[in-house]
Amino acid sequence: MSKRRVTTDDRRVRAVIEAVTPSVDCGRFPIKRVAGEQVDVEADCFADGHDVVACLVLHRRAEQRAWKSVAMKALGNDRWRGSFGVESLGTYVYTVTAWVDAFLSWRHDFARRIDADDIRVAAQAGADLIETAAARASGADRRRLTDWARRLKAEIDIEALQALALDKSLSEVAARYPDRTRAVTWPFELRVSVDRERARYSSWYELFPRSCSPNAGVHGTFADCAACLPYVAAMGFDVLYLPPIHPIGREQRKGRNNTLVTAADDVGSPWAIGAAEGGHTAVHPQLGTLGDFRTLLARASERGLEIALDIAFQCAPDHPWVKSHPRWFRWRPDGTVQYAENPPKKYQDIYPFDFESDDWQALWQALLEVFLFWCGEGVRIFRVDNPHTKPFPFWEWVIGRIRSEHPDVIFLSEAFTRPKVMHRLAKLGFTQSYTYFTWRNTKQELVEYFTELSSAPGREYFRPNCWPNTPDILSEYLQVGGQPAFMARVVLAATLCANYGLYGPAFELMEHSPREAGSEEYLDSEKYELRQWDLARQDNLAEFIGRINAARRDNEALHHDWRLRFFPVDNDQLICYAKSTENLDNIVVAVVNLDPAHPQSGWVDLDLDHLGVDAATAYQMHDLLSGARYLWNGRRNFVLLDPARSPAHIFRLRRRVRSEQDFDYFA
Amino acid sequence: MSKRRVTTDDRRVRAVIEAVTPSVDCGRFPIKRVAGEQVDVEADCFADGHDVVACLVLHRRAEQRAWKSVAMKALGNDRWRGSFGVESLGTYVYTVTAWVDAFLSWRHDFARRIDADDIRVAAQAGADLIETAAARASGADRRRLTDWARRLKAEIDIEALQALALDKSLSEVAARYPDRTRAVTWPFELRVSVDRERARYSSWYELFPRSCSPNAGVHGTFADCAACLPYVAAMGFDVLYLPPIHPIGREQRKGRNNTLVTAADDVGSPWAIGAAEGGHTAVHPQLGTLGDFRTLLARASERGLEIALDIAFQCAPDHPWVKSHPRWFRWRPDGTVQYAENPPKKYQDIYPFDFESDDWQALWQALLEVFLFWCGEGVRIFRVDNPHTKPFPFWEWVIGRIRSEHPDVIFLSEAFTRPKVMHRLAKLGFTQSYTYFTWRNTKQELVEYFTELSSAPGREYFRPNCWPNTPDILSEYLQVGGQPAFMARVVLAATLCANYGLYGPAFELMEHSPREAGSEEYLDSEKYELRQWDLARQDNLAEFIGRINAARRDNEALHHDWRLRFFPVDNDQLICYAKSTENLDNIVVAVVNLDPAHPQSGWVDLDLDHLGVDAATAYQMHDLLSGARYLWNGRRNFVLLDPARSPAHIFRLRRRVRSEQDFDYFA
Repeated sequence: MSKRRVTTDDRRVRAVIEAVTPSVDCGRFPIKRVAGEQVDVEADCFADGHDVVACLVLHRRAEQRAWKSVAMKALGNDRWRGSFGVESLGTYVYTVTAWVDAFLSWRHDFARRIDADDIRVAAQAGADLIETAAARASGADRRRLTDWARRLKAEIDIEALQALALDKSLSEVAARYPDRTRAVTWPFELRVSVDRERARYSSWYELFPRSCSPNAGVHGTFADCAACLPYVAAMGFDVLYLPPIHPIGREQRKGRNNTLVTAADDVGSPWAIGAAEGGHTAVHPQLGTLGDFRTLLARASERGLEIALDIAFQCAPDHPWVKSHPRWFRWRPDGTVQYAENPPKKYQDIYPFDFESDDWQALWQALLEVFLFWCGEGVRIFRVDNPHTKPFPFWEWVIGRIRSEHPDVIFLSEAFTRPKVMHRLAKLGFTQSYTYFTWRNTKQELVEYFTELSSAPGREYFRPNCWPNTPDILSEYLQVGGQPAFMARVVLAATLCANYGLYGPAFELMEHSPREAGSEEYLDSEKYELRQWDLARQDNLAEFIGRINAARRDNEALHHDWRLRFFPVDNDQLICYAKSTENLDNIVVAVVNLDPAHPQSGWVDLDLDHLGVDAATAYQMHDLLSGARYLWNGRRNFVLLDPARSPAHIFRLRRRVRSEQDFDYFA
Repeated sequence: MSKRRVTTDDRRVRAVIEAVTPSVDCGRFPIKRVAGEQVDVEADCFADGHDVVACLVLHRRAEQRAWKSVAMKALGNDRWRGSFGVESLGTYVYTVTAWVDAFLSWRHDFARRIDADDIRVAAQAGADLIETAAARASGADRRRLTDWARRLKAEIDIEALQALALDKSLSEVAARYPDRTRAVTWPFELRVSVDRERARYSSWYELFPRSCSPNAGVHGTFADCAACLPYVAAMGFDVLYLPPIHPIGREQRKGRNNTLVTAADDVGSPWAIGAAEGGHTAVHPQLGTLGDFRTLLARASERGLEIALDIAFQCAPDHPWVKSHPRWFRWRPDGTVQYAENPPKKYQDIYPFDFESDDWQALWQALLEVFLFWCGEGVRIFRVDNPHTKPFPFWEWVIGRIRSEHPDVIFLSEAFTRPKVMHRLAKLGFTQSYTYFTWRNTKQELVEYFTELSSAPGREYFRPNCWPNTPDILSEYLQVGGQPAFMARVVLAATLCANYGLYGPAFELMEHSPREAGSEEYLDSEKYELRQWDLARQDNLAEFIGRINAARRDNEALHHDWRLRFFPVDNDQLICYAKSTENLDNIVVAVVNLDPAHPQSGWVDLDLDHLGVDAATAYQMHDLLSGARYLWNGRRNFVLLDPARSPAHIFRLRRRVRSEQDFDYFA
């Protein structure tokens, strides 16, 4: 549904193009790539009859006019492929053009001729074609082609004529000057949205700054949060995501555990945004000043951590906009605003915006400016709260506007909703998306879901970001599974998905009590109160998480999602899968015991062909969690995982490499 | 890639539409239907948040402007479906529109409210919405809605107010007047090309009129051909297809068995079209006159047979156009025209047209006029020779032009070539297509191929027409398999495919000698000489074929291709499948022994759920070939087929029906 080209009235266009991929919804939406990656474009290109078709991928940066081109190669069954690289951030455009190539057709035909008279006639026809190619060429090429045509017309000896006509290097010159007058071009200009690498590979840590104070019951500040940076950085995360940092409404403020009555010292939910002190561009005074926030950004950056802000487009009843822009809210006949809901959740402390307001243009502009304000402060990652409760056209517009100025901005869609809604948000611009990972716990569920995420057409635009927990979701598996459950889930998230995140310190301290039986809400949730976390606790999983993140950092295979392959294990409690780089120089194999209560063992069956491993030679499995090294042979090997020790292996597969001294080692 | 609509600048369009089906190549090509069928349109329709979405299928005849609409129903997972019927020949257009329905959203929300004050406020808001609906209504509806809104505002009693607000019949009135101001409409207008029923269900018989003379060595005439009509009609065919009936070139005429030297009495190939007597709109004098042809058409029509003409766009060297329109051919430097080829076949007696000629417009127009000439004579079915060697845009143009005047014309594409080329021809307008059936002989090949034909997306435009033989193809299976092979192949063609055809009498007389070992060409092929057929032969399969065609005629299930289902048999030489009508009131089950040399037996395993048959009750299998009736029980039943007797069953499955006298019979 993108821009179309005008076609001429000349119907003598014999080549056709069909089924150009990748393409999202007939080109309505861009595919996504990261700078430095390539786009493999395929198409069905063919013509009537038996003439030779040639085709090109045309590509350019969106803001440039001139196309670059790359020849497509035949894959068989009329399918062709050509690839181009996307080097820099922003938008690229690509399409395909194809034509019946008169010169190549002539050459193909000429090579089959055997009768001498016939060859002479064909050579004359070829010479005519080569003259037209010469007319399209210039300089040395033109001279070579002109000379070639002349010699073809003059040559008398049949064998010499055959050799001359089929001269390979001259043919290559002629083929560079095809007659594309009657080329057909795919009517859609397809787009690639190019992000920076962190869009594809990132490790998030979510933290409430107000719980960072070293003193119990004291509201933490940005400075306290900065003091936690070494702890977070030591675990190997690269994104520190903060819940909303704005003034918190006082009207209808929620009490502890989401109660509707509040005590005087209740701090309220950070998602109830706005109070007398300001709204979406203000900083909650108890956290500090905008200057303090800038300092936090700088300190984080020094430790390789980017700050991700939470953007929640909604207002506490005392948000300044409620009075200054009443048209941005939908007023009921009794003069109230219906509070926000995300069934079954009720947000009595929050007013939704009326995106359909008659004053919608001013509202949308104001929301755009919220993003731009924080971009101006140096923020480049936004976790967007409940985007599925705001109109899709708003997101396409606002993300498009921001990325046209700041193509390095990353948007994470926090939409836990129906599949097609989540996909739509990803299509229209969200860089990353939360997933159903939290609710995929059995082997069959995990295999099905991650096979879909890594191989279905949606992978062109939907980049998953997997979280074992969030402040809203304490899964039943974590509630009941104890330490092995936490260990297994973080290994799964971090190895199945190149983008993953944790809500800590609740995660590494294995907080597991729900507000009530059957609920996924945390008891004494930080959403409504200050918490103090004992990071020094003996059983803190921080060091274990650090080893996982180090394995991620050191293994390029874990920076990508597409080359994921599951392998059979003869025990449904054990799941086994590999990720590998395209050239197979880095292979990671994970085996996870999904049963947090019992040791489980079984035979895993690796597809060594897929991994490029010689089945006849032993290979080393180096466990990046324990440091242990195992020698494996052939496809089938035995694994035993005792959750009391560790529920998972993250193996780096090392092939045997023989040095010139015949000293064996594994690389 | 069809017509797009202009969108407004108002971005407050909250509903989205995705994945509208059926749709061929983003709407670039129409789907195909037969008059009286329906189009089941599906789409993903959804919006942000939790409001209620409503959506319609919009449809109209292409030449009308006003849309009709039909409500879509939710299928779950944001998928919706709505259907419309196509009553008459020509082109219909359809698309989908969707909107967030304010009234339905209010009603859904209202029903969940429990607080009395809240209910009163919500009722007021609903009354306002109903007033806007009233403003869109007129007459009695308007009065009912206005009155409803007034009463909602006045009612004080809570229970009465709830009942009034949720009044079902009033709600239905309000729902008929939605606010579609911000509806979104799918940007593609999708097309349906509607044919007459014979496009979907037809039985073809190919016959060389020149071999119809009762006297050996005498050139048959249209009158001789008319004398054969009772024979063809008795077998139950409804299309009689004649190879080209035009004057045959004398220059480069082919001799018997495709030799390059001719004797004086050689009749040449009918596909070498044109001589001094005329070209594509002339009749070969030895067949008779145009008047004789008209008589043949009329006689055929009286017997329920339509004449299909063979349109081969190519010329013998002495076709009048070669002299009168030399620009329509591609001349080589030596003043010759390269003869036609369809590798590995060489047609030394045929010049191809140069569709890329500078005079292409005149050429294309002349070819259009060939079709229109024969349409003018009353011909409505054309079998088009080698369409894949002519440019695709030509076919789209010429078929479009003809069908705009004669929407009842049927075009059969004789393209035996690469899959995507065959599909392209079907997409751009050919009504039916030859298939790979001839080369699909094993059970696995047949199951795979017919599963694809009946269920893959291509079924929306590619209507297969299956031929066990043609004058060009005597398959190896027929060469070696004897009578059982002929019987099995015609049963397969006629029951797997609603459109099928035979080249006779070569087929029913089991002509099976190839020109040479390894060749699929007939020895002494009618393509190059007169043949005399002994139709009175004892082993003529005409009566057997007649029984098959009668089974086709009497069983609606065999008039359709989509509801085909294969069932397991524990013997790879036996293939079993069913076709059924949508309401399951007609079910045909075929079992065929693919081994022409030996009896084969096995247990077939019918999916009785799929067929709507009660597994606990016996059912009758009535063999429409032999007349025998078997009582079957449950899924698994035993079948033995001896090729020496009959290699196939064509069962009509009859369920037990109990009458009021408790007298069992099967319907």
